Amino acid sequence: MSKYCFGIDIGGTTVKCGLFDTDGNMVENWEIVTQTEDKGSHILSDVAETIAAKMREKSIGKGDIVGVGVGIPGPVNAKGEVLCAVNLHWDYVNIVDVLGKLTGLTIKAGNDANVAALGEVWKGGGVGYKNVVMVTLGTGVGGGVISDGHIIAGANGGAGEIGHIHVDDEIDAACNCGNCGCLEQVASATGIAKLAVDKLKETDEPSLLRGVQNISAKSVFDAVKTGDQLAIDVAERFGKYLGKALAAIAVTVDPEVFVIGGGVSKAGSVIIDYIEIYYRQYVFKGSLHTKFALAKLGNDAGIYGAAKLVIG
Amino acid sequence: MSKYCFGIDIGGTTVKCGLFDTDGNMVENWEIVTQTEDKGSHILSDVAETIAAKMREKSIGKGDIVGVGVGIPGPVNAKGEVLCAVNLHWDYVNIVDVLGKLTGLTIKAGNDANVAALGEVWKGGGVGYKNVVMVTLGTGVGGGVISDGHIIAGANGGAGEIGHIHVDDEIDAACNCGNCGCLEQVASATGIAKLAVDKLKETDEPSLLRGVQNISAKSVFDAVKTGDQLAIDVAERFGKYLGKALAAIAVTVDPEVFVIGGGVSKAGSVIIDYIEIYYRQYVFKGSLHTKFALAKLGNDAGIYGAAKLVIG
Repeated sequence: MSKYCFGIDIGGTTVKCGLFDTDGNMVENWEIVTQTEDKGSHILSDVAETIAAKMREKSIGKGDIVGVGVGIPGPVNAKGEVLCAVNLHWDYVNIVDVLGKLTGLTIKAGNDANVAALGEVWKGGGVGYKNVVMVTLGTGVGGGVISDGHIIAGANGGAGEIGHIHVDDEIDAACNCGNCGCLEQVASATGIAKLAVDKLKETDEPSLLRGVQNISAKSVFDAVKTGDQLAIDVAERFGKYLGKALAAIAVTVDPEVFVIGGGVSKAGSVIIDYIEIYYRQYVFKGSLHTKFALAKLGNDAGIYGAAKLVIG
Repeated sequence: MSKYCFGIDIGGTTVKCGLFDTDGNMVENWEIVTQTEDKGSHILSDVAETIAAKMREKSIGKGDIVGVGVGIPGPVNAKGEVLCAVNLHWDYVNIVDVLGKLTGLTIKAGNDANVAALGEVWKGGGVGYKNVVMVTLGTGVGGGVISDGHIIAGANGGAGEIGHIHVDDEIDAACNCGNCGCLEQVASATGIAKLAVDKLKETDEPSLLRGVQNISAKSVFDAVKTGDQLAIDVAERFGKYLGKALAAIAVTVDPEVFVIGGGVSKAGSVIIDYIEIYYRQYVFKGSLHTKFALAKLGNDAGIYGAAKLVIG
């Protein structure tokens, strides 16, 4: 008889939920609203309720559920304790205990970016590899390090926070983290757009981007594809920052593959072209042949990875 | 009845050997010469012979040996295969098979820097921690990443090769690895000495170092301790390069502690002062309180860590 598990990805706006069989097939997925009122104290009871409702609907008993995996937008240590989650208005939460009591099920938890990395390794762009670094280029830059098939959480759940590698002494604007010159400031969707806007101000060089109202990472890479030189210069700068940072990551954990996801990755393999050339320039020869791949699961990476946490 | 194991650290000049009981007490240690002739083909039979001789001497039977751990100066993957070891004149060696057949014992192997890191975590400067990055500042800069008590080997055994993080675009001299601007070029014993020699050439500033014949990292830090401003400027530059690099490592694997070893670390806690101040300036706040400690086992770290490989 089939066994099941739940993969839950708690975000600041919605909670993404998936019911999986233990072979890794998604049976069903759905969302509920994240209620952040009252210091986010309703979130876990809402999650417990939607799990219970789905079990009733599908006539699945507790004995057929191997567990519930949960991704959290904040640092989670190796024991599954949430240290804080600003977007959920949470301080410390022992989610394994709290959600365990609410559901009567086995709970495992991880940081959302790390869990998404695990999802991509299991069913997405990292299939076939056991040592993977995922790089998420979205509003910010996040990451997840998978070693021998398992998430590296780190001492304080801070492993994989690669958006905050310092990459430029010249940048004096502050990153959201309070430091200046972080990778996130130049390689996120907003960072790439800002590189382009700054470049347009600095020069009179003609560019397709001059006609664009709200310049985004997408408009930059669309222009790159038409051969627009100013956009290409921006892409080179982005690639140099990111390639150099990934070279530092490679000599630390030596992955088989970097999986590139997040909104920016929708531009396709062109972004890998710009990253890879600088990566190979700066990396130690032992990691010269590390592969690059695009993520495949999009917003579902989190629920897949959360499910994988409990399937093991 | 006691059980035993061997910890073997194969270097380019000598093979360091240790007999340990499984509680981690070193019973005896000794060295043999590394015979690199004939493509290093005698090394493993010499190791097997010295092990057999020690077992006869101590009247220890094979049934009382849990295994032989070996540290190798080159990349070793998670299966214990040596991919190459230039200083031993080795290409690929399946050391688990070869030394296993020669000794009739269980063999485990790892890269020497990674194995030394494991030794420091077990019995040295990293005792009490499970997530540790060891930084070895010697002729070169090496490292080892320990996560949840285990070595991160990486896809090609290249994890922990932190001496080859690119830290400076302005350096056009080549590192031993062929790249330019590696951490090793500015934070190793030779690198620190070169920073001082260059600085003495650039300025007329008075300095105790002007009277020193062969400037070494030791003479630089000795001068720092007397308040010599030029030496202090060199120490600041060293600390900034290394602190920034360790901040990048921290957001990747988030260790509890950095253990600093190698010849340069003999200068004592003064080197940590210069590293730590820049580390805290550049690191993501989640890893702000990572500790720093000096290594304690010196040249014995390798045999301790090799023994720990088989004790588990």
